[in-house]
Amino acid sequence: MNPRRQFLKLTGSVFTSSLMASASFHSLASMSDESTQSLQTDVNEKSVSADKTYQIVALVFDDYETLDLHGPIEMLGHMKNVDIKLIANTQICKSYQGPRVVADLLTSNIHPCDLLIIPGGIGTRSLVANNTMTHWLTKQISASKKVFSICTGSALLAKTVSLNHHKATTNKMAYQWVTSLNHQVDWQPSARWVDDRKFLTSSGVSAGTDAALFWVSKLKGISEAQRIARLAEYTWNHDPKNDPFAVSS
Amino acid sequence: MNPRRQFLKLTGSVFTSSLMASASFHSLASMSDESTQSLQTDVNEKSVSADKTYQIVALVFDDYETLDLHGPIEMLGHMKNVDIKLIANTQICKSYQGPRVVADLLTSNIHPCDLLIIPGGIGTRSLVANNTMTHWLTKQISASKKVFSICTGSALLAKTVSLNHHKATTNKMAYQWVTSLNHQVDWQPSARWVDDRKFLTSSGVSAGTDAALFWVSKLKGISEAQRIARLAEYTWNHDPKNDPFAVSS
Repeated sequence: MNPRRQFLKLTGSVFTSSLMASASFHSLASMSDESTQSLQTDVNEKSVSADKTYQIVALVFDDYETLDLHGPIEMLGHMKNVDIKLIANTQICKSYQGPRVVADLLTSNIHPCDLLIIPGGIGTRSLVANNTMTHWLTKQISASKKVFSICTGSALLAKTVSLNHHKATTNKMAYQWVTSLNHQVDWQPSARWVDDRKFLTSSGVSAGTDAALFWVSKLKGISEAQRIARLAEYTWNHDPKNDPFAVSS
Repeated sequence: MNPRRQFLKLTGSVFTSSLMASASFHSLASMSDESTQSLQTDVNEKSVSADKTYQIVALVFDDYETLDLHGPIEMLGHMKNVDIKLIANTQICKSYQGPRVVADLLTSNIHPCDLLIIPGGIGTRSLVANNTMTHWLTKQISASKKVFSICTGSALLAKTVSLNHHKATTNKMAYQWVTSLNHQVDWQPSARWVDDRKFLTSSGVSAGTDAALFWVSKLKGISEAQRIARLAEYTWNHDPKNDPFAVSS
């Protein structure tokens, strides 16, 4: 078994023990300190033992949009030596479409990583008013080398000051709402994705899959992005200026 | 809260109780009869109380391919009055890319449904040799009005006799392996997807997203499929004969 697989199995096992030890399955608030500590220890061991692994942390929350999250995970997850963890403020999150995912990490802590993924979805409509989330996200952005939002995930970024004075884009059907949240951001009404310094922001839902392949090409070269697209039998829209869903500004 | 949302929250709550009551978190075999019964009762109540809901059941297993599952769920999940449940032989399954999902149902029983989804992935390489899975799947196919496989999910179908004498397709990079499993199937080397009576089979990974939109168009009309594609800012390949990854037979 390769180290990545072995780690995933180990993480699953430790996390499961934490869940079973917990008085309440759903709420971090009611987890015992011991079980939270167990989870943290496991994550720290991973960071030390495989420091060349590309560490991806993806935020999830109730009513996240399925493809916002899983399209990028599909593509990024085919790079070699990558580790993808989900982070949330509860241990199980339900997508807008119904199926549920398990968080590997909790937002009670900051988790330094190479890439922070922020999906969108209906759930962002309430999360933008959650000051605890905005406070955590501001700190988590500082601890992340790169930040990648999909769709209305950019609404959560817009609520921090971190995105100010950057070019960025978002879902084009929710364009008025997202852009109204922060006028200090240089919003782009026509772009499949925008890469500006620390922030990679994509347009709605499936645009995240194209932007993820762009990020693979930046990290590993165009041939690696093409290999992964072919493996997924995916016709990659590799031109960020080709936005079939652009709006007028 | 709309009925679908309310049901999902209820299901989550009852399922969580089942998990916590269970002696072992991971294994169905070691679940108490009481907790399994609790899960079943909840599902049956749903069937009775909302019989016009379009019921989708999607199989998951360790090392399933992320987009095989979540691409179709994204598109099908935007239809009105639809309910999507995951089914597995363990309560948590880990995708090939790492993140984990929670099963709503277990393969200890057969669950009649309108649409059964079978994703592919590396996990199918061992599952094809699992006679218990093949036996369950044969019965589950009989209890499903329509069966939709993505990528190497068709390998699992091929191990049953149900797919015999149907036209079908599969992942084109794994074409030799899948087609070698059953010579009674009329395999199509060039097709984005194939719809033949009970079975809708798609080509690799992202082809499932296109085939799902095709199925939306069959159920609800082309304008509904176009509405959902637009919502997801997705450029739908709506022609099953347009297969950029076709192989020679």
